[in-house]
Amino acid sequence: MADVFGKERSALHRLAAQSTSRPYYRPLSSRGAEVGIDGRTVVMAGCNDYLGLSADPRVTEVAARALRRYGVSCSGSRVLNGTLALHEELEGRLAAFVGGEAALVTTTGFQANLALAALLDERDAVFADMSNHASLVDAVRLGGAAHHRYRHRDLAHLGRLLAASESASDPGRGRGRLIVTDGMFSMEGDLCPLPGLVELARRHGARLVVDGAHDIGLLGAGGRGVTEHFGLIGEVDLVTGTLSKCFGSVGGMLIGSASVVEHLRHSARSVLFSAAMPPPSAAAALASLDIIESEPERRQRVFGHARRLLAGLRSLGWDTGDSTTPVVPVYVGDSRLCLRVWQELLDAGVFTNAVVAPAVARNRALIRVTPQAIHTDDHITRVLDAFARVRRGLGRILPAPGGPGRTEAVVA
Amino acid sequence: MADVFGKERSALHRLAAQSTSRPYYRPLSSRGAEVGIDGRTVVMAGCNDYLGLSADPRVTEVAARALRRYGVSCSGSRVLNGTLALHEELEGRLAAFVGGEAALVTTTGFQANLALAALLDERDAVFADMSNHASLVDAVRLGGAAHHRYRHRDLAHLGRLLAASESASDPGRGRGRLIVTDGMFSMEGDLCPLPGLVELARRHGARLVVDGAHDIGLLGAGGRGVTEHFGLIGEVDLVTGTLSKCFGSVGGMLIGSASVVEHLRHSARSVLFSAAMPPPSAAAALASLDIIESEPERRQRVFGHARRLLAGLRSLGWDTGDSTTPVVPVYVGDSRLCLRVWQELLDAGVFTNAVVAPAVARNRALIRVTPQAIHTDDHITRVLDAFARVRRGLGRILPAPGGPGRTEAVVA
Repeated sequence: MADVFGKERSALHRLAAQSTSRPYYRPLSSRGAEVGIDGRTVVMAGCNDYLGLSADPRVTEVAARALRRYGVSCSGSRVLNGTLALHEELEGRLAAFVGGEAALVTTTGFQANLALAALLDERDAVFADMSNHASLVDAVRLGGAAHHRYRHRDLAHLGRLLAASESASDPGRGRGRLIVTDGMFSMEGDLCPLPGLVELARRHGARLVVDGAHDIGLLGAGGRGVTEHFGLIGEVDLVTGTLSKCFGSVGGMLIGSASVVEHLRHSARSVLFSAAMPPPSAAAALASLDIIESEPERRQRVFGHARRLLAGLRSLGWDTGDSTTPVVPVYVGDSRLCLRVWQELLDAGVFTNAVVAPAVARNRALIRVTPQAIHTDDHITRVLDAFARVRRGLGRILPAPGGPGRTEAVVA
Repeated sequence: MADVFGKERSALHRLAAQSTSRPYYRPLSSRGAEVGIDGRTVVMAGCNDYLGLSADPRVTEVAARALRRYGVSCSGSRVLNGTLALHEELEGRLAAFVGGEAALVTTTGFQANLALAALLDERDAVFADMSNHASLVDAVRLGGAAHHRYRHRDLAHLGRLLAASESASDPGRGRGRLIVTDGMFSMEGDLCPLPGLVELARRHGARLVVDGAHDIGLLGAGGRGVTEHFGLIGEVDLVTGTLSKCFGSVGGMLIGSASVVEHLRHSARSVLFSAAMPPPSAAAALASLDIIESEPERRQRVFGHARRLLAGLRSLGWDTGDSTTPVVPVYVGDSRLCLRVWQELLDAGVFTNAVVAPAVARNRALIRVTPQAIHTDDHITRVLDAFARVRRGLGRILPAPGGPGRTEAVVA
């Protein structure tokens, strides 16, 4: 008889077990622009706290006060005993900031996205970018809807899938339809083609949901996210997001019309059946939002670092794909080679993220580099120096920029 | 064309919209044995912080120190940049406490249970108690396994389902099998029949997973949970749990053999793709574990309160079902009546939980009362007085104890 504990190791598990590099679950002894690892201090270039707020004293002191006033936890669901005035204040502020009638905060960003399952049933069809975050994929699965994946950022492909679903021969004709996409893609660092998505959603009578996990706080002059970047605030039916990146906290958010938020509050299982966001996390997010609104220079600083990294890495011969943002992917291709590059970067004093399947497609393994506002220019120099050193050592076995099919010469 | 935002309101949503009682999402202005609500102070009898640790200064001060040292958040997944020595220390302590080779902590208890999906695929069969927590139900759905629900705590029914799945005519014969149950049921307050489950799992070659969300910290002389209560530590293949109840924090845990935990670390999407448990939450859980291990009198105190509540409520004519634990259900049956009872209890100075579908079966609506170690005897007296007052006012329309089919007379 089969054993449910006898499942084959996942690709990630096999890779981690076979490699001499150890990029996963490495314990850090300190956090910040530089971190402690194995008794050494290295530059942290693999953290999503873009604005550097998670340890900002203005944020941690507010969180500490909330800890003392309310405790570590509400020890109950938002719906029953876990709602504080603090949560409602945060929801009001986030709705105004992102640009919606109402907001619901959740305990994690993952669970904010899972809440979308409450909008779906087996009669619905979802059209989803192939690079969407895992939590969006799982939400569709939980919701039971038909799941159509369109090629990454490919509006023409999405348009064809939408049109096909309207044809008289499609058994799902007339069903409810939802387009869902990351705003700024977590691994590739590129942006969803939002104007085209808004137009396709309108033309085909579909709802549009955008996950602003990486862009809210970072994109747009006011940091209001990908909708502000494209001048489309209020044109998306529902925006989801996280507090664990630009807000330096932990938690998720759902922002939309009062009616859809009210529906989610009373129907989303990941909301109803989970302990509320901890008081210090909610207080911290409020303090971070004050800083996000009042210090645009933090965004300018991160984007400055990102431009320098993108230009520097490209001039060194690395392939950074289509990114124009502080998610800087360095495509390596092969997973094992990716782990080797990761280890050599660490040896050179820089902590990055080695991203392999299932987070990205197979053979699209990449090193993710993310600058933060708390990095100095010298930190960025050290990151570029480390990539130069690794390129010198491994140049012959590294892919040319763009991989097969592109024509750029390998510089180093 | 259908609109995914045009879903019918859920039963809970309709109920909340129709009722003049407002038991859901009520903001509290303070926490503790008594809480502030609408400018009044009432007894909090609806919080799962059984041991009263969420605001214990020994816990909050340790959390505040972690905040200052590490920040509010790791702003990244455990697998990439979100593992601190603190997480590993907590995992080691929890594994030893619950009784397993290894542990993995997750950002919420909900996501600990979702991680079970990584053990399953469409070739597997899961046998699940009908009263299991929503997160366990969703894990099976995400995993794609066949889902067999057995009647609440009914070993005979489970045995028949297992036997049927072995018959030569069953197309799933030989498939991997998993039995999953809450340890202490979150709404009913009764315990899973663990000795019988262990025996059935062995006889039928199934794995057994127990969710100790409500029992770890509370049950057994050492607070090690339902396995200790039944003398079966180490006899369950995998134990899941939460840090948001007895530990007064937020987060989840998975405890089992080193190999299954290693598999989950590298395969569970709710772990790989979610920001790590915040440093203050992890530090708080460690401080709480110290207290759980060193102060058994806190458990004795909660159980003393529970015994007084159960006896007192029964003598007042309320139906408390089969509970013998600090989850004290007061069965009302009809959902609207349940909300009315909730409001009258609040008017009488006691905050409880009004639990209706989908958290319990329809027509099994209940008021959940949960004592805490920080309650005084006077608090328990006030709770009983409130139930007496409500019973006097509503006696004629309340159900007899046990509802239809039971013979006890209504006392009040």
